[in-house]
Amino acid sequence: MLVLHNPDHARHAGRHEMFRGRLVPCHEVPQRLDHVLAELRRRGFGHLAEPGPGDDAAFEALLQRVHAPRYLRFLAGAWDEWVALDPANAALDALPSVWPVRGFRADVEPDNFAARMGLYSFDAGTPLTAGSWAAARTGARCAVQAAQAVAGGARAAFALTRPPGHHAGADFFGGYCFLNNAALAAEALRAAGHARVAVLDVDYHHGNGTQALFYERADVFFASIHGDPRTEYPFYLGHSDERGAGAGAGCNLNLPLPRGTGFAAWRAALATARAAIAAHGASALVVSLGVDTFEGDPISGFRLASADYLSLGRDLAALALPTVFVFEGGYAVDEVGVNTVNVLEGFGAP
Amino acid sequence: MLVLHNPDHARHAGRHEMFRGRLVPCHEVPQRLDHVLAELRRRGFGHLAEPGPGDDAAFEALLQRVHAPRYLRFLAGAWDEWVALDPANAALDALPSVWPVRGFRADVEPDNFAARMGLYSFDAGTPLTAGSWAAARTGARCAVQAAQAVAGGARAAFALTRPPGHHAGADFFGGYCFLNNAALAAEALRAAGHARVAVLDVDYHHGNGTQALFYERADVFFASIHGDPRTEYPFYLGHSDERGAGAGAGCNLNLPLPRGTGFAAWRAALATARAAIAAHGASALVVSLGVDTFEGDPISGFRLASADYLSLGRDLAALALPTVFVFEGGYAVDEVGVNTVNVLEGFGAP
Repeated sequence: MLVLHNPDHARHAGRHEMFRGRLVPCHEVPQRLDHVLAELRRRGFGHLAEPGPGDDAAFEALLQRVHAPRYLRFLAGAWDEWVALDPANAALDALPSVWPVRGFRADVEPDNFAARMGLYSFDAGTPLTAGSWAAARTGARCAVQAAQAVAGGARAAFALTRPPGHHAGADFFGGYCFLNNAALAAEALRAAGHARVAVLDVDYHHGNGTQALFYERADVFFASIHGDPRTEYPFYLGHSDERGAGAGAGCNLNLPLPRGTGFAAWRAALATARAAIAAHGASALVVSLGVDTFEGDPISGFRLASADYLSLGRDLAALALPTVFVFEGGYAVDEVGVNTVNVLEGFGAP
Repeated sequence: MLVLHNPDHARHAGRHEMFRGRLVPCHEVPQRLDHVLAELRRRGFGHLAEPGPGDDAAFEALLQRVHAPRYLRFLAGAWDEWVALDPANAALDALPSVWPVRGFRADVEPDNFAARMGLYSFDAGTPLTAGSWAAARTGARCAVQAAQAVAGGARAAFALTRPPGHHAGADFFGGYCFLNNAALAAEALRAAGHARVAVLDVDYHHGNGTQALFYERADVFFASIHGDPRTEYPFYLGHSDERGAGAGAGCNLNLPLPRGTGFAAWRAALATARAAIAAHGASALVVSLGVDTFEGDPISGFRLASADYLSLGRDLAALALPTVFVFEGGYAVDEVGVNTVNVLEGFGAP
């Protein structure tokens, strides 16, 4: 399996995030990816490579298909703006502090930097740092090129990148995510000729960004198994009655589960998702691969054990679809490597 | 002039707010009100009183007319919930850290406390403290009873309270505001028989909560003179093209001015607002009285001098309407007293 890992990932290394009302050290740290790389090397699994330069025009077109141009412009320039406001800001990460609530306008882009930070975000847990844009952009290349490898005939490929992506929407960041890598992979598969694509999100947290991006589309089916949004982050989407709208009616499947869910119940939800994906008729699959469903995850509430990730991989393989894995969450740093590679090994296609 | 001051105001004393990306000591401090009280006493201006018990059922009805019941329930219980999550929280203020962006749902109220904090707020600058609800609620009584005094025949009354109110909407807090005192005063005037009421907001910051509350209504005209929302907090409302909607079309007037505006240009905007209020045919006026238009204000950008507030008061008196003053912003603590009482003295009706 081709593993495209992001050489710029560590340029995004947030210092603090607002978490349950306090500023705490970031959970989404570079070591997460390093542990996966180390475990791949230890097992000799996969063909490790960095993304190539690729076709810049095609890449930009995909970025702009997923994200709003004004949002991309903001992200590209945000750090320089932040530091220009006050040189002392270079020693801080930027976090939003005000945002548009119901009834406020999003059609006028304010000049003020803090106002745009809030316009384009949904949490204060996603610090924007000096290297966030570079890391996210190279990560997006990993996702697109992994999808292109699969579109070119590979059975599977893995975009091993951070920051993660599934919480990022057309014009908002949050949940440690800036660019939606899974959505970019899905669009790359669509652009390469797959008429129907499915995105399956197995991260503990609902893929609210991915859902929002495809909610009114029939060509990309979205399924997610996640902690119940009544009690679990990111809260405001992910309920089971969200089934898609317009042309996408019936093409969104949320399978929220309560805190404490173990693998048996989780796997039953996976079977439901697999059946729905098969029924949709997708010819390629993108897996938003978070391993924060692990029983030892510090910020999540399911109880999957390390061995369960081998079964998860085998269940995904049974869909018999060309598959792009995209790395998302998982914060029990030591075990992130083992659990992630277990999924790939269970899937096969070494 | 009857001055109803809030005996519970100091129970709301936030420790820190997120301001331009950092946690800093709060700007909205109890001393603000104390300086106004001291200046009133120094000049012997006004009849100082605390609000009485009033008619509880009528007060609750007004609260629920302005604010959503689920929002009021949240505010009433929020501090106890916050401390129940972790006893150590008693030493912290609660601040939101995640919120619903465009496309996220507000119809389902999550169980999670952090999720509801974000659902019901638009900034992380408004710490919710042990005494916030008590202070805001008694403040709302000040506003309602000041309006009732005016409805009963007084030429003017002043609700001297904090936390301020004009940024609070039907179901959101922010901008140091929890309950919209000006809107409550306007509703109390309406309930007492004034068919048309005007709210004039002279605070430096746009009264986004008040505007949102009355945007589709013709019976309450809203006019605001404020820093241009492209560059000035609260950013996402306050543009001149927001003229009201539906039945309220034409009943909203925003007069944004650039940073650095001095009294001559500010006063010209006031003349425009006064003409519009007269044309609307209101029989009573509520003034959201912020004095952060002062040249020495630490977080604002206009250049009014202390003597200008006497002129402002005289200009307001020229409208010849029964008038309820409601205290809003103003953060140059030492001068807040002088500037506020200058407005009242200029208005007359000692």
